[in-house]
Amino acid sequence: MPDDRLQRQIAFAAEVDRLKLVERRTSVIGGARLENSAEHSWHVALLCRVFAEYAPEGADIQQATWMLLLHDVVEVDAGDTFAFDEAGYEDKEERERRAAERIFGLLPDDQRAEAMALWEEFEEGATPTARYANALDRFQGLLQNRGNGGGTWLEHGVARERVIERMRPIETAVPKLWPVVLATIDEVFSAPRPSRGPGSTVY
Amino acid sequence: MPDDRLQRQIAFAAEVDRLKLVERRTSVIGGARLENSAEHSWHVALLCRVFAEYAPEGADIQQATWMLLLHDVVEVDAGDTFAFDEAGYEDKEERERRAAERIFGLLPDDQRAEAMALWEEFEEGATPTARYANALDRFQGLLQNRGNGGGTWLEHGVARERVIERMRPIETAVPKLWPVVLATIDEVFSAPRPSRGPGSTVY
Repeated sequence: MPDDRLQRQIAFAAEVDRLKLVERRTSVIGGARLENSAEHSWHVALLCRVFAEYAPEGADIQQATWMLLLHDVVEVDAGDTFAFDEAGYEDKEERERRAAERIFGLLPDDQRAEAMALWEEFEEGATPTARYANALDRFQGLLQNRGNGGGTWLEHGVARERVIERMRPIETAVPKLWPVVLATIDEVFSAPRPSRGPGSTVY
Repeated sequence: MPDDRLQRQIAFAAEVDRLKLVERRTSVIGGARLENSAEHSWHVALLCRVFAEYAPEGADIQQATWMLLLHDVVEVDAGDTFAFDEAGYEDKEERERRAAERIFGLLPDDQRAEAMALWEEFEEGATPTARYANALDRFQGLLQNRGNGGGTWLEHGVARERVIERMRPIETAVPKLWPVVLATIDEVFSAPRPSRGPGSTVY
């Protein structure tokens, strides 16, 4: 029989599998289906290495990677809250805190405390590590919507200004990526609309 | 316009998204659908931290994490090869090498070389870091099949001995997990079979 510590680690390892069944609002590039939070977490953790040279001074890339691997685990209980859903955001904090306590609580105490601290650091977004992780989390959403010609933003009629606000943390955390963000938003929101017919002014 | 370096990093970041569409033979726990290689990579990278205390001496946990985030990216071109498919294994190395060259080749040269070296280290499986990563890759498959009452092993009629051989690298790399592996295999392969009817000898 595995000892209690190992049993708890295995219980956690099996429980987080459910994150694969939590759907986000963004689609995989190409639009075949919605993306889930587990594969999103993989993608953004990988971006953490790819863009490491642009991280803010003082960011710990290894910690940012762990943070991103863990950041959505609470959704196993709390579900994904769409970035532009104001009502959903009202009780998001409360729902996610309860989820964090239950799910990280499956781990041995020292690991529970570490995971909880990392998740809280991400949520507060105050340290260079958390600011980097947070910026990548948003940038990954932008990559998906860019690959899908506007994706979620256009489908849900999100205004250009709200998308810019959502992406804003990238501007200071990873300034190198900011021109890409603005160019992408410009491109998506200025794509040709259906013609108004002859005689109308389109410019 | 982003400079050439950044453009290449973004091209890579978008290209790897396709890993989300590569199906494995294992199912998510509960059996709702097959698991894909991107969410599998997330899962196993997370296990890298959870089981870090049992890693072989000299393993670099951060490098093992990068390795696991990258280890299946070649499947974007080469597809997943089922662990028990002997024919598929014949040209696996060649297919995957071509894929690695193309996909990691999207990155700037220094990052291409780093990614290639990490992937090769994983494939060769000789260093403590690679042995740890490789053991977790197999253990994650065991967790899935354990959660699904035998899953892929029973569906594809894989013999108990072949499963043990497949899991064998865990024995020396992460000996702490080996009794769990054996107990799981025992449990799965000794689950009650349909009765042969009255009068037959079942033991």
